[in-house]
Amino acid sequence: MKVNRLTIWGVEGIGEISANDQLGDVIADICRQEPNGPLLDNDVLVVTQKIVSKAEGRLVPIDASDPLSHKQLVEQEAVRIVRRRGDLIITETKHGFICANSGIDLSNIERGYAALLPIDSDKSARRIRDIIRVKHGVNVGVIVSDTFGRPWRKGLTDVAIGIAGVAGVVDLRGTPDSLGRIMQVTEVAVADELASAAELVMGKSSGIPVAVIRGVDADWFRDSKISELVRPPQEDLFR
Amino acid sequence: MKVNRLTIWGVEGIGEISANDQLGDVIADICRQEPNGPLLDNDVLVVTQKIVSKAEGRLVPIDASDPLSHKQLVEQEAVRIVRRRGDLIITETKHGFICANSGIDLSNIERGYAALLPIDSDKSARRIRDIIRVKHGVNVGVIVSDTFGRPWRKGLTDVAIGIAGVAGVVDLRGTPDSLGRIMQVTEVAVADELASAAELVMGKSSGIPVAVIRGVDADWFRDSKISELVRPPQEDLFR
Repeated sequence: MKVNRLTIWGVEGIGEISANDQLGDVIADICRQEPNGPLLDNDVLVVTQKIVSKAEGRLVPIDASDPLSHKQLVEQEAVRIVRRRGDLIITETKHGFICANSGIDLSNIERGYAALLPIDSDKSARRIRDIIRVKHGVNVGVIVSDTFGRPWRKGLTDVAIGIAGVAGVVDLRGTPDSLGRIMQVTEVAVADELASAAELVMGKSSGIPVAVIRGVDADWFRDSKISELVRPPQEDLFR
Repeated sequence: MKVNRLTIWGVEGIGEISANDQLGDVIADICRQEPNGPLLDNDVLVVTQKIVSKAEGRLVPIDASDPLSHKQLVEQEAVRIVRRRGDLIITETKHGFICANSGIDLSNIERGYAALLPIDSDKSARRIRDIIRVKHGVNVGVIVSDTFGRPWRKGLTDVAIGIAGVAGVVDLRGTPDSLGRIMQVTEVAVADELASAAELVMGKSSGIPVAVIRGVDADWFRDSKISELVRPPQEDLFR
């Protein structure tokens, strides 16, 4: 299971993305011109939710001068309000994600618009993966990432909200530890860790919405879906 | 603020660690013999809690045949029980971490012993950093990492539990976004993201307890402490 060496870089030169842009083509084409060179089999591509939402036409108009306009949208996109304090609303989305403001975001979006999460973020990831596989001949894993807060800890980290071709969770239950004993529970959320690693080369203000991770364990490439990472309510102690 | 390219590798060949081993020396020495070459200024070293606890003599005997023995230790190390379900106990530790079993762990530990968290995990990180700086002449950031679960999401990720010389949170509040507008809130938990990235090259069963991350943004190297990442109870909506 061991991975030896990872290299991670942000893909520069991806311009503004508009509705109906085919992200798989855009990314594969840009990577061919990039100093880091073209995509290779078993690269993992991490693509931020924002450009996915833009490509899928998920921008909706809001009244930027009226905070209520944003708030109504947040409630409309939620299946449940989990917590509320002042302007902060923690919601559960249709996908089962628990996050601030139903994942709706205003930064890096033209004023007067808000970006909603993709309707089916696994499908978004799969579409990018399929285009790159079929039209560009390269077999990559794709993670659609978003920036979430966490309880108990300060600061935001990027997590996976849609995956295709790369594991969400790698189950090391029952693998012997280095002393040869059977381990009890070690399910590692590798897709979230890959999303977090990618964020380190993106930055929030640098406008780099795609990162490539090379060197990921070949065993982690398989069919997958984001539900691997979403804890069912009945197992959850904190909602 | 942009980082262009990160390289991450696991440091191989670190043997069993015993009480009073000086980790800074052990790691710097091993890296000099490693194919990846010696540590350089502005590398980030991620060191798993387990070897830190071993080096600091934080192994305590338990009765491996009696589950109660482990449970008593968990309660003793907790300042508060946050949730309990069956055998699972979520506690708040003296450091302010909220995690399963007060961070006490039995894997990769000799049977009959349990590893407690370091008493002061920032000090643990600082000691490693200082030894490498003073005795080996290299200025690295150090993160002591541990594997925590999260509410709402399945799978574990590695997070920082002690830091020295590298930022916990990078505050991008007020930085213009790529459309030139001032962003509202983007505090990125870079130390947690670095810990997660490092976990990808460690694996749980491969016995690689140290990773090096090269290429981290030079601006992120500064004095730091783990309290940057610990949300004060009064700000927290989920305890």
